[in-house]
Amino acid sequence: MTLPISADLIAEHNAAQAAALEDDYGALGRKLARAGIDINAVKDRVAAFSVAVPSWGAGRGGTRFAKFPIPGEPTNIHEKLEDCAVINQLSRVTPRVSPHFPWDKVSDYAALREEAAGLGLGFDAVNSNTFQDQPGQAHTYANGSLSAQDPGARRQAVEHNIECIEIGRKLGSTDLTVWVGDGTNFPGQQDFARSLDRYLEAASEIYAALPDDWRMLLEHKMFEPAFYSTVISDWGSSILAAQELGPKAKCLVDLGHHAPNVNIEQIVARLHRFGKLGGFHFNDSKYGDDDLDSGSINPHQLFLVFNELAEAEANPRDGFRPSYMIDQSHNVTDPIESMLSSAEAIAQCYAKASLVDRGALHAAQEANDTMMAFQALRRAYTIDVSPILAKARVEAGGACDVLAVYRQSRYRDRKAQERRAVGLGAGIV
Amino acid sequence: MTLPISADLIAEHNAAQAAALEDDYGALGRKLARAGIDINAVKDRVAAFSVAVPSWGAGRGGTRFAKFPIPGEPTNIHEKLEDCAVINQLSRVTPRVSPHFPWDKVSDYAALREEAAGLGLGFDAVNSNTFQDQPGQAHTYANGSLSAQDPGARRQAVEHNIECIEIGRKLGSTDLTVWVGDGTNFPGQQDFARSLDRYLEAASEIYAALPDDWRMLLEHKMFEPAFYSTVISDWGSSILAAQELGPKAKCLVDLGHHAPNVNIEQIVARLHRFGKLGGFHFNDSKYGDDDLDSGSINPHQLFLVFNELAEAEANPRDGFRPSYMIDQSHNVTDPIESMLSSAEAIAQCYAKASLVDRGALHAAQEANDTMMAFQALRRAYTIDVSPILAKARVEAGGACDVLAVYRQSRYRDRKAQERRAVGLGAGIV
Amino acid sequence: MTLPISADLIAEHNAAQAAALEDDYGALGRKLARAGIDINAVKDRVAAFSVAVPSWGAGRGGTRFAKFPIPGEPTNIHEKLEDCAVINQLSRVTPRVSPHFPWDKVSDYAALREEAAGLGLGFDAVNSNTFQDQPGQAHTYANGSLSAQDPGARRQAVEHNIECIEIGRKLGSTDLTVWVGDGTNFPGQQDFARSLDRYLEAASEIYAALPDDWRMLLEHKMFEPAFYSTVISDWGSSILAAQELGPKAKCLVDLGHHAPNVNIEQIVARLHRFGKLGGFHFNDSKYGDDDLDSGSINPHQLFLVFNELAEAEANPRDGFRPSYMIDQSHNVTDPIESMLSSAEAIAQCYAKASLVDRGALHAAQEANDTMMAFQALRRAYTIDVSPILAKARVEAGGACDVLAVYRQSRYRDRKAQERRAVGLGAGIV
Amino acid sequence: MTLPISADLIAEHNAAQAAALEDDYGALGRKLARAGIDINAVKDRVAAFSVAVPSWGAGRGGTRFAKFPIPGEPTNIHEKLEDCAVINQLSRVTPRVSPHFPWDKVSDYAALREEAAGLGLGFDAVNSNTFQDQPGQAHTYANGSLSAQDPGARRQAVEHNIECIEIGRKLGSTDLTVWVGDGTNFPGQQDFARSLDRYLEAASEIYAALPDDWRMLLEHKMFEPAFYSTVISDWGSSILAAQELGPKAKCLVDLGHHAPNVNIEQIVARLHRFGKLGGFHFNDSKYGDDDLDSGSINPHQLFLVFNELAEAEANPRDGFRPSYMIDQSHNVTDPIESMLSSAEAIAQCYAKASLVDRGALHAAQEANDTMMAFQALRRAYTIDVSPILAKARVEAGGACDVLAVYRQSRYRDRKAQERRAVGLGAGIV
Repeated sequence: MTLPISADLIAEHNAAQAAALEDDYGALGRKLARAGIDINAVKDRVAAFSVAVPSWGAGRGGTRFAKFPIPGEPTNIHEKLEDCAVINQLSRVTPRVSPHFPWDKVSDYAALREEAAGLGLGFDAVNSNTFQDQPGQAHTYANGSLSAQDPGARRQAVEHNIECIEIGRKLGSTDLTVWVGDGTNFPGQQDFARSLDRYLEAASEIYAALPDDWRMLLEHKMFEPAFYSTVISDWGSSILAAQELGPKAKCLVDLGHHAPNVNIEQIVARLHRFGKLGGFHFNDSKYGDDDLDSGSINPHQLFLVFNELAEAEANPRDGFRPSYMIDQSHNVTDPIESMLSSAEAIAQCYAKASLVDRGALHAAQEANDTMMAFQALRRAYTIDVSPILAKARVEAGGACDVLAVYRQSRYRDRKAQERRAVGLGAGIV
Repeated sequence: MTLPISADLIAEHNAAQAAALEDDYGALGRKLARAGIDINAVKDRVAAFSVAVPSWGAGRGGTRFAKFPIPGEPTNIHEKLEDCAVINQLSRVTPRVSPHFPWDKVSDYAALREEAAGLGLGFDAVNSNTFQDQPGQAHTYANGSLSAQDPGARRQAVEHNIECIEIGRKLGSTDLTVWVGDGTNFPGQQDFARSLDRYLEAASEIYAALPDDWRMLLEHKMFEPAFYSTVISDWGSSILAAQELGPKAKCLVDLGHHAPNVNIEQIVARLHRFGKLGGFHFNDSKYGDDDLDSGSINPHQLFLVFNELAEAEANPRDGFRPSYMIDQSHNVTDPIESMLSSAEAIAQCYAKASLVDRGALHAAQEANDTMMAFQALRRAYTIDVSPILAKARVEAGGACDVLAVYRQSRYRDRKAQERRAVGLGAGIV
Repeated sequence: MTLPISADLIAEHNAAQAAALEDDYGALGRKLARAGIDINAVKDRVAAFSVAVPSWGAGRGGTRFAKFPIPGEPTNIHEKLEDCAVINQLSRVTPRVSPHFPWDKVSDYAALREEAAGLGLGFDAVNSNTFQDQPGQAHTYANGSLSAQDPGARRQAVEHNIECIEIGRKLGSTDLTVWVGDGTNFPGQQDFARSLDRYLEAASEIYAALPDDWRMLLEHKMFEPAFYSTVISDWGSSILAAQELGPKAKCLVDLGHHAPNVNIEQIVARLHRFGKLGGFHFNDSKYGDDDLDSGSINPHQLFLVFNELAEAEANPRDGFRPSYMIDQSHNVTDPIESMLSSAEAIAQCYAKASLVDRGALHAAQEANDTMMAFQALRRAYTIDVSPILAKARVEAGGACDVLAVYRQSRYRDRKAQERRAVGLGAGIV
Repeated sequence: MTLPISADLIAEHNAAQAAALEDDYGALGRKLARAGIDINAVKDRVAAFSVAVPSWGAGRGGTRFAKFPIPGEPTNIHEKLEDCAVINQLSRVTPRVSPHFPWDKVSDYAALREEAAGLGLGFDAVNSNTFQDQPGQAHTYANGSLSAQDPGARRQAVEHNIECIEIGRKLGSTDLTVWVGDGTNFPGQQDFARSLDRYLEAASEIYAALPDDWRMLLEHKMFEPAFYSTVISDWGSSILAAQELGPKAKCLVDLGHHAPNVNIEQIVARLHRFGKLGGFHFNDSKYGDDDLDSGSINPHQLFLVFNELAEAEANPRDGFRPSYMIDQSHNVTDPIESMLSSAEAIAQCYAKASLVDRGALHAAQEANDTMMAFQALRRAYTIDVSPILAKARVEAGGACDVLAVYRQSRYRDRKAQERRAVGLGAGIV
């Protein structure tokens, strides 16, 4: 295994930080011990946590107005894997990459899997793309894909998803994430019920092609690219679709795909309550599907989501095996830095949720002691868990301060010399 | 049957308007005939349409800040029925009253039913109240009702609902509408999953007490009176609860109980698609559960809802029998005038939805002809259907211009002399 | 003047519709006469109304995810002008085109002006573009334009705007519309106050270059392309900036650039009250800056905006000269059809606002007669004004049914033969 | 000075916590020292921070649906002062009470001021009430107050505000906070421009009565109790009104009075940029004006607001003297506990904002180093500042753990014995 960042650089950095880390970790350990918590047990739990990164997240994102590329951006799956390897090498929390097809198509998937393994990476959920037309494509998705009126477009979309499953098997994936851009921009454009009927019929053909140990993750989204209605617009539509498809169909929650003000942590609890919580696309948002860095806008919400996940893990009614992925559009930062920072924010919330005194929480809930129930969460949220994360990372060979080491490595500058430039444009490709 | 408004007054008014109405009706008839539509058939359809009014809507509403009463407000169910009789006498579209308990409790329900019949009124869905404590109540609802931690509160709430069913049977109702204020104001206050478990268990006891021909209408609401979470917060929670309860449980949509920007007409279509569309509480909103007059803010949305209802009626997958009620808070108007105006707005949208050329709409949808699909709706929405409504009303004995006759009748002034004054206060009671 | 659509085709169509139009117009005239309104006076007022179309609106729009082109799309300003000429020829309500630079750059603007005049078109507000980088550009706008930290980027943005003014003078424009994409995606990314200082300083340089009879229209937008903050995010920021710049600076309202639930018609009234109402970008939205067809989602809101404009016209405190433009992204329709339909929707609202009985409205407002004040608006909104618009159009040489004639003309099919194809892509260019 | 909670109880509690606090404070001090920050300087800054509490906040709040009182609630200003004294005694951060009239009317204000001083309290901004009718009032506010059509209602509202100033002078206040419920529930109900004209004319009469060293704080609100429009609905209306009134008029920001998704911290920066930032009503919200406990929903937003305040303090363009008050509706908790918890949350955000490395932040902003600018904020937000707050509190005589001591004191139980019960009801009174 050859990792992109110099192990010596990491080691030197960690050595320089060691005394401070020990001081902070020790103090936090004493504080937690006074509350009856063993910090090492928490650290071990945190060390076992991971979240996938999407291959496409390694490139700069854009809007319909513009995209501003940076020197050294990756332009193919091989370069993207290399960048993902940097993220995981430093953070030790992102060991899997989620590929997207046809963007990441190669001729030899066994070789790609080996290439990834050589970088310390595996593959996570496979993502299909039926929201764009590819050059030479027989049927357009301009009027929808799985829900399209045109049977040819539906057939093409089904076959593409089945092909994604085939590729995923070669890569070692066990999840297919299905997000479609299908929807309408005008009242009356399509019939709501018949669109859903068509979607369900097409989705059931994909479902039928799933291997036994695979799951089909349905991702809902309120709007964009369709701006009046979306065929799977909310968790209600998503769970009803998953129910009709069968037990291997689950719901995937993207934190930016909801109506304003919606209580997302309650949606997480509802999906688990009804046996359909499949996974997450982590990001943050202020206005819509902004795809901002996880926890950059509302870290407390992210904590509350993890609090529900901790509750679900403790009460696995129909099982608990959520898939976690970062899904962000890095329009104004170096994507590697954003994913390093985001993975840290996500792991912090996971750690904080682990620190909640669930006994005290449940006792307060049962006694209708609202203030103490809230304080049980607030106490955990207030704790600075950075030393726990840094300790786990350093012990696994990662960097104490991930951004500092990344900058010192001058990785991007080197890639700017090696890689071809990306042109101006708009959108996500 | 003795109705509150002088039949002579109505007749005189209608006579004075007759020529103008004939002119307008004739012109619209010719216009529709050119599009292949028989105006009299539409008029007959409109004449068969009705919507219930809530007994409590006859009084002035208020906010948590203040309530500003008006002279002549009703203060008991008898006075409320009288006011509802005015609305129906003039509009001929609101023949049923939806009672609320304990607010409308009387000692003799058979007599009440007879009293209503004497005013030309019947009873619609019965509404229970477990969001307020009543003097002398054994268990408080401060911490919830059907979902409360306290078994005593849950039991009391179940029994109250069963009592409502008993009263409803005496009044001729066949629906029980269940809305609870249960929820939380703090993260952690209650466990989302266990709250819902308790709700479902309690609701199933009520369900078990339903007569065979009754339905239980579950009303969801995003927020207020709880401001962090609500146990049945959205249509997703509502339909999953209705699925667990059984076939007699259906979902009720209040137009003001959704997150901002949500596509309500699609929710209506989804509920019908999955066999759970139970009914509506009509009102309008700009910001939240504003309980404004139906169609006063966004009449096009109301039309689009009725367009889905027309589609559902034409495609009754698992049957189609929605319950319609006005549910508004008349804070700044005479409640009778607001309900007259609202009933007109609702009937207009019903009539416009009836005018949509569904053949053209479906053909355009099937051809992905977005503009013509939209125009099929827009053409119907643009038509001024007032002459159709007025004609149907006049033929049924109502008033050509309902507000004009109501004002001429000086009904409220007379009541202000007869009835006792309502004190200052806040809130809905 | 050679117009793109056959005058014979239009004449034949109008002749076939003439009897029906006379019947409808006559009936509406009698109805209005009963309310004391002269339909011909309203028709003359409507005939004098116009709204500009943007050159870029002639092409299919897209999202960051995809753009689905259609055969026959225009690819340069000459083809765009031709399409705009179709819209105006049929609708007779869109005689001006709003150009965008550098997209519409040509070598000879006098010739372009003549070319437009030959198609029956003039030029409206000039639009600058500092939200995208152009090939070969010296300074990037990746970190902002008028508010950028980099003085070179600011200078470049100022000079581009001044160049737009120069071009506009040659084209006969008298307005410069300034919208910038400047903003941030992260808390802390920029200092809110210093960003605005820089924006104001740069904007004042552009302001200084305005000819005496020109206006500078500041367009605010809540979000997109920046997703945490925007330098001119709302009408408050916009009007304060316009106040600092001077009397020729006014505010431009785009209907899709506001926070959810905001009362846009009140914003219009506020801008007029403080002397800063400059103009509109008309479109509709359900979720964000959806750029949907005007009036397709909430036509009542559009009517209420025009009601404020009618009030402002009647009470021109500091003058009343708003600039009107359609600004939509036609992602799923033929742009010509969308602009024909939208221009109709806008003119309908203008006509309805003209029908409001302002005497009755004001009297009801003064008497706190809420219901009758509302009914004064509702009565006008309910009227089907189509016959008035059609009559005005036909008299001016346009088509009775604009979409029908456009389809009969097979204009797009012909252009699909003539014009080069547009490639796949994403975004607005 | 006789304070309500036993000093011995506090001392015992603090002694028991002393060792743990020293350990935590010491560790944090070493961590901050490594970043070049002197923890004692931060502690001193925190010790000087304070926020007012509203007299009415001492009682349980409610909604329009219900209010659920608790035993021992205060029912007059004297009991409210006693409860406020508890909050300040334990937290040492709430030394001022903001009174509300007519709710807090007494016959002798000099005595009331003395009574408060005896409890360690002073008076903050005076609040007028023109959103409710009081028994015996000459003119109703049903149709507005400062903006009412009725000159009598306007005159009455002006005089009431002037009376509030008079009372405030006796109590030692120097701010008058003006919030009106004026607005509309229907399109057309009032003319937007004329309503504002009347508001401004009436407000200027109040302004004229302000003593030289007083400020008039204008509080805007998007909706509720009016649900279609509000006369001072947003910061744009507020600042334009404040500009017209004069230099003593400033804008007050309530965190729950905005449209969904709005960037409140930017509004704070804008108000300061234009010299009109007057103060805050702290609370939190998820859906509307939920009046939830400060920082309970989105503590990061509260931090970002304080970050802007720290920037403003460092750059006092036209001075910087904001007024801070907690303004919450304690519907489901003991109000004392909620205010203790909220004051802690507010002080935490103040402390975290003080820890931001502004040099690093500004350098990153100037270098367009987005990630490092964000990290400058994130580093400060991540720190657990509890030891700093506890240390400052203990040194001032407050409690190390405010809620723990409050519960041990059994204060509420004692008051439940002493005070008369509050009846059932709805709303805020």
